[in-house]
Amino acid sequence: MLPDRAFFDRLADVASAETLPRFRAGIDVVNKQAGGFDPVTEGDRAAETAIRTLIEASFPEHGILGEEHASVGLDRDRIWVIDPIDGTRAFISGLPTWGTLIGLYEKGRAKMGLIDQPFTRERYFADGTKTFYRGPDGERVLKVRDCGDLSNATLFTTSPHIFEGVEADLYRSVEAKVRLFRYGVDCYAYALLAAGHIDLVVESGLKPYDVGGLIPVVEQAGGIMTSWTGGRAEMGGTVVAAGSKAVHEQVLRLLNP
Amino acid sequence: MLPDRAFFDRLADVASAETLPRFRAGIDVVNKQAGGFDPVTEGDRAAETAIRTLIEASFPEHGILGEEHASVGLDRDRIWVIDPIDGTRAFISGLPTWGTLIGLYEKGRAKMGLIDQPFTRERYFADGTKTFYRGPDGERVLKVRDCGDLSNATLFTTSPHIFEGVEADLYRSVEAKVRLFRYGVDCYAYALLAAGHIDLVVESGLKPYDVGGLIPVVEQAGGIMTSWTGGRAEMGGTVVAAGSKAVHEQVLRLLNP
Repeated sequence: MLPDRAFFDRLADVASAETLPRFRAGIDVVNKQAGGFDPVTEGDRAAETAIRTLIEASFPEHGILGEEHASVGLDRDRIWVIDPIDGTRAFISGLPTWGTLIGLYEKGRAKMGLIDQPFTRERYFADGTKTFYRGPDGERVLKVRDCGDLSNATLFTTSPHIFEGVEADLYRSVEAKVRLFRYGVDCYAYALLAAGHIDLVVESGLKPYDVGGLIPVVEQAGGIMTSWTGGRAEMGGTVVAAGSKAVHEQVLRLLNP
Repeated sequence: MLPDRAFFDRLADVASAETLPRFRAGIDVVNKQAGGFDPVTEGDRAAETAIRTLIEASFPEHGILGEEHASVGLDRDRIWVIDPIDGTRAFISGLPTWGTLIGLYEKGRAKMGLIDQPFTRERYFADGTKTFYRGPDGERVLKVRDCGDLSNATLFTTSPHIFEGVEADLYRSVEAKVRLFRYGVDCYAYALLAAGHIDLVVESGLKPYDVGGLIPVVEQAGGIMTSWTGGRAEMGGTVVAAGSKAVHEQVLRLLNP
């Protein structure tokens, strides 16, 4: 049995009940990696626990891959992929561009997905065929836009510092050709792409739970989301998401010289 | 006579009536500078007109400096400094980190100021002595936080690309010493600073209307906002805003080696 939209809404609701009260409220920040600054909050952990509790009660036969807690049944046909707070740096800075990401994989393919932003009360949901938006400016079915050529594109990436070595040069070869580029919004960039506000997202160093909720939202709005070599993006790593097939092809040529 | 909070609210309301319906709505983008990409929207122009109409009706003796229309009476004691849409790149990308900035200068000093974000319904207002917040998470008087040392600081800047030549090296000398840095949120960074969520903003290339609404919001929340050489910031140019006097001094030493 597959979950319905109401079930995803319940997941988002129990997560936001944990995240939102801790947003801008003087949170505890735990350094997850020695040497680096990878904050993870109580909210992150509590939200994942709340999501998993609901999934385990309703779909005990499904597997779960989360950012914060141990994996369950990763060899099963259906696997939930959860990032309770994507954009923890935004979260701890008081900036409402973080999101709760929930994806459902079926035999390795991302089929359903959700990006929820509790502070702005925006929800981007892909049900298996279409991507829906609900927010303060209303409800609608989302459709990417086709800007036609890379020279017309608005590009987002979380930070130029996420690219290392040769990847940095390859990324810059794309950045040099777009009309406008902006840094800094994590998962929110993929929501803006699905909604037809921007044209391109290029990132690297992603984990499966960073992309699992995003792929259906982008693809079911008519977008294309692959690795830098054109393969599937479900496992994370490098990602190119585009609203235009032509632009996606241009970017892949630049990234694979 | 000085305006009251209710008057600033009216200004923000007439501005958002022009900006918000055009946000995420397929706007006309006009290239203001040949060769560069400096989008200015219908909303930008219409919002400034609406603000100016209200000011001219209530305070005909005041001067006005706006981004979009001709200046009025810049030699008068009281001057309104207006940026109807600060963060036009965010605006055209569908990202709710743009804001409407309205400042009131008295004999060259920024006395009252407003940062309004219509989509998230957040309003940051400095009345001459205190900075007030009103938003979806309630109302409060704002106070910066003191992180004590640059090594603890969260730094924001709109983009590393705003710095040219030696300024880029100086900026990087600051960035290298902070705990966390993020790019991409224009005026919103100063609001986060005033609210005590982040510690430092370092920018360059600003116009008076980019800073006029921000200075009172930062200062009246207990923050410090100067040029890179420690002078007043009312005319724009280079800016350092900090929640901590000690951190501000550390940054000024780095920027003036």
